[in-house]
Amino acid sequence: MEILQKRIKVARGELPADLVLHNARLVNVCSGECYPADVAIVDGVIAGTIVQGDTSVPPYRGKAERDLQGKWLAPALIDGHMHIESTMLILSEFARLVVPRGVTTVILDPHEFANVMGVDGIRYVLESGRGLPLTSYVTLSSCVPASEFESPYRPLFVDDLAPFLADERVLGLAEMMNIPGVLCGDEQVLAKIQATLQQGLVVDGHAPGIYGQNLCAYAAAGMMSDHECTTPDEARERLRLGMWLMIREGSAARNLEALLPVIKELHPPRAFFVTDDRDPQDLTTRGHIDSIVRQAIAYGLDPLEAIRLASYNTAQYFRLYNRGAIVPGFVADMVVLDDLSTFQVESVYKDGVLVAAEGALVTAIPAQATTMSAQMEKSIHIGNISLEEIRIPGQPGLIEVIGIEPGQITTLRLHEEAPYDHGEIIADPTRDLLKLVVIERHHASKRIGSGLVKGFGLTRGAIASSVAHDAHNIVIAGASDDDILRAAHVLQEMGGGFVCVVDGSVRAAVPLPIGGLVSPLPAAELVQQLHTLDAVASELGCTLAHPCMTLSFLSLSVIPSLKLTDQGLIDVETFTRIPLQR
Amino acid sequence: MEILQKRIKVARGELPADLVLHNARLVNVCSGECYPADVAIVDGVIAGTIVQGDTSVPPYRGKAERDLQGKWLAPALIDGHMHIESTMLILSEFARLVVPRGVTTVILDPHEFANVMGVDGIRYVLESGRGLPLTSYVTLSSCVPASEFESPYRPLFVDDLAPFLADERVLGLAEMMNIPGVLCGDEQVLAKIQATLQQGLVVDGHAPGIYGQNLCAYAAAGMMSDHECTTPDEARERLRLGMWLMIREGSAARNLEALLPVIKELHPPRAFFVTDDRDPQDLTTRGHIDSIVRQAIAYGLDPLEAIRLASYNTAQYFRLYNRGAIVPGFVADMVVLDDLSTFQVESVYKDGVLVAAEGALVTAIPAQATTMSAQMEKSIHIGNISLEEIRIPGQPGLIEVIGIEPGQITTLRLHEEAPYDHGEIIADPTRDLLKLVVIERHHASKRIGSGLVKGFGLTRGAIASSVAHDAHNIVIAGASDDDILRAAHVLQEMGGGFVCVVDGSVRAAVPLPIGGLVSPLPAAELVQQLHTLDAVASELGCTLAHPCMTLSFLSLSVIPSLKLTDQGLIDVETFTRIPLQR
Repeated sequence: MEILQKRIKVARGELPADLVLHNARLVNVCSGECYPADVAIVDGVIAGTIVQGDTSVPPYRGKAERDLQGKWLAPALIDGHMHIESTMLILSEFARLVVPRGVTTVILDPHEFANVMGVDGIRYVLESGRGLPLTSYVTLSSCVPASEFESPYRPLFVDDLAPFLADERVLGLAEMMNIPGVLCGDEQVLAKIQATLQQGLVVDGHAPGIYGQNLCAYAAAGMMSDHECTTPDEARERLRLGMWLMIREGSAARNLEALLPVIKELHPPRAFFVTDDRDPQDLTTRGHIDSIVRQAIAYGLDPLEAIRLASYNTAQYFRLYNRGAIVPGFVADMVVLDDLSTFQVESVYKDGVLVAAEGALVTAIPAQATTMSAQMEKSIHIGNISLEEIRIPGQPGLIEVIGIEPGQITTLRLHEEAPYDHGEIIADPTRDLLKLVVIERHHASKRIGSGLVKGFGLTRGAIASSVAHDAHNIVIAGASDDDILRAAHVLQEMGGGFVCVVDGSVRAAVPLPIGGLVSPLPAAELVQQLHTLDAVASELGCTLAHPCMTLSFLSLSVIPSLKLTDQGLIDVETFTRIPLQR
Repeated sequence: MEILQKRIKVARGELPADLVLHNARLVNVCSGECYPADVAIVDGVIAGTIVQGDTSVPPYRGKAERDLQGKWLAPALIDGHMHIESTMLILSEFARLVVPRGVTTVILDPHEFANVMGVDGIRYVLESGRGLPLTSYVTLSSCVPASEFESPYRPLFVDDLAPFLADERVLGLAEMMNIPGVLCGDEQVLAKIQATLQQGLVVDGHAPGIYGQNLCAYAAAGMMSDHECTTPDEARERLRLGMWLMIREGSAARNLEALLPVIKELHPPRAFFVTDDRDPQDLTTRGHIDSIVRQAIAYGLDPLEAIRLASYNTAQYFRLYNRGAIVPGFVADMVVLDDLSTFQVESVYKDGVLVAAEGALVTAIPAQATTMSAQMEKSIHIGNISLEEIRIPGQPGLIEVIGIEPGQITTLRLHEEAPYDHGEIIADPTRDLLKLVVIERHHASKRIGSGLVKGFGLTRGAIASSVAHDAHNIVIAGASDDDILRAAHVLQEMGGGFVCVVDGSVRAAVPLPIGGLVSPLPAAELVQQLHTLDAVASELGCTLAHPCMTLSFLSLSVIPSLKLTDQGLIDVETFTRIPLQR
């Protein structure tokens, strides 16, 4: 009550504001105009905006005042769907990177943490977002495990998720990837959807390649959006079915250029920008949602509409009714721009406070935001694996081989003459056939899947990753069983990450001790570590730009064609487990 | 769960729909396009829409199918703010009138019923809306009484309103007219706003003539909309402050033509149509929200945008997430149009069922929807008033006179030489000075205000109304005290309405026995009664087209300049009670 009374007084000019920004060039995403204005802020909220030149009232006065000298003032940006785990950064370091770029709100799907820690993973993401100059919300990971062929820490059922739905920072159910489950009316799947809808929250879709009646069924069942569109036709169909178009521009999956013509034609109210997955190199070079705005303007979208797609529309979808615009009563998250058409950020205000200027944070990150539980740092449990356990018994003849497609997360299903030695299938680097091993890492169950992979080009040693979508078991590709085993055990000691081992010694390592997914380091240091790793792999003959990235998708059992999990080889086309050799 | 599973099956074409509309020309307000499509409906909800010509799947099959032969299929219309009391119809008769015109959802502010019955009035409106082919929601009347100078049945405090906020048919707080209360931070006013916001509901504004810092304060305090804009500048200012523009086109207050240029320039997402107050004559001739759509198109607005302003946008504002568009998962409220640009309604579907065709309902109105409580029909309590009680003691000299402005609800403050007779101020029809009497009618308190009014032209008799904004006490204008008294007592016997009495006998009567506000008759019969009343008044010399309408606003103490309530003469400019004579 007192807050509201004070806000009213400030808006009426009866009390000084906390901050007044004079001579702004206001980017108003509600009215669709830009015009000169003064903006008064109190208690982190916009109290009033007065068009410049209105001399009928005295100008706002504030405890602090700043003359923007005609610089643009736009709502700060929102990422509508992203996985913090893809950045490999903790939230405080991520904030340090993106807040100076004008991003002050993110909606996080903690899918990877949920796979490795269950509900504690969701709780960790909620907790680690507190106290930052970045507001983070969560959509609940809907599909843990991603398929029955994957072994996460433990499956998440509706009863696991339901208690989170009342959390004010939980905005809905994240990408419903279980399309077969939806289409066949699976009760556990529908229960998650219904519980979310009953709470008045949103259900994000994930519908690659779905169209026509199946897409109708998917939308009619409650899915409200899709971030998997890659063509204008797909985008148009989703808009026609009332689904919100999440235009994704990630590091690997980049859909902005293809989808923008639909925005320019229809100007649909139901569209906004998301990054989904951005890796740390990309974040430090291209940027985040700010880069999408820049790119969209460069492709010819009106700057105001581009900003609206990165602020107001996103807030509307998520029912964040007081975010995404600079109007009275809204949260005062704002960016000052030196230039509108290139979205050159001069400074950033969060809750009405200057938090970034000239590309750097000017506010302290509270210490508790960087601490994490011991549980998060002790998430790799494989026990002591012996050479015997990673042997592949077999015989001469054709075997199934996973074929890498450079730059893709899809793979090919190849058939090759087995490299064979004394009753055993072995690696043969001379034919670019490496041994691929996936070790269950949550419960030290010693469940191990193994096979061969072609396309790395590695001639010696082994590389290993504890980032291995979506269950994040340990995945290792190597030319030698000794190095494979060593790499696995090194990862366990590090608490996870990436490692490259040759002749028993670690040649490069990227520790990701938090859940085996994320580094505690600042982005620049992490990027340097990743660069070293790639360079070492390259020296060892690896022909892939980012071999650990490739590695991390080889166990994702929902992306075609042939994958390997701790449960064995998975033919994703038929969705069955298949033997290495017939 | 079963409903969702069935819906999915229907959407996939695995089960027949309840209804399939083939060959529609779909008006898609989500994508902003019109195109040929088939639409499948099950359990009152859209299951799927398939673009015609998609031969990759067999067409939808239904238990019922209809070939629309290329006719337009648009979302049915929504009125975002109206007072059912202004139509003088019960909801079932109102539905009979407007559903065939394509209106299937209304948001009602039961402000008049709330004035005459308190919370029972709100409850009555909620109850009487059940079972109709028209969905009615309620916004809670925020300002009962409209001012301290009015005497409603009883004031409504936040504790009276709060229990309704959990009702799923209550969407928010209705027009917050107490602008001074908001601007001075009145605790009772802010408590109503906060209780509404805490429930996640909307707060409607009402901000005539407010601008600049005061409008900022009003918006910052929580008011999200305004339906009192009359100029493009006002409309633009509200949009710039993030307020939703309710474009009102009522019977008296008509703002569409003035505001439409702003819509055509900015295409704002935050705008929609409302009627506010439409009288029965206007409803039966011009129509309802359909007439606004027609008029907007005639003024050059794109038909699709006009329909969006009367459906999707309204639903978005009120957070009715599954209404206002023909997309999967949405309520199947639809109109078939013979012609789009003239909005010629051929038939209407409500919850997927044909409810109107060729201008008439084809569904039965359930009997219980027309019954009402005895309490509603016994709402006039003035007791037995004597001639002595309506005498105006006075002396010769100037007196205050309310001057009528034909066609306006504002009045003039006149000063005239008092018609005087033996210590008493009397009527003098030769100078068009009638006696005006307001009798408190809720509790038979015998609190009576009296004065003189100029502008009716009535030469004999008296006319009386129990519709008397906003407290709805009895208001009577007459040339003779005997007829004034007779008219008051006749109204009490009728349970309210309008009456014209000459020489002690009733010459015309429009009974409005429900709360003294509304008739149980069909619209056509009511209109006939009103027509007769106007004709009789005209015969008696009345120069006003609708004298009872004029009468009903003479006690509204918040509209300038001079008004009369049961508490006496009110100078609305200074907001004080003033004596008739100094």
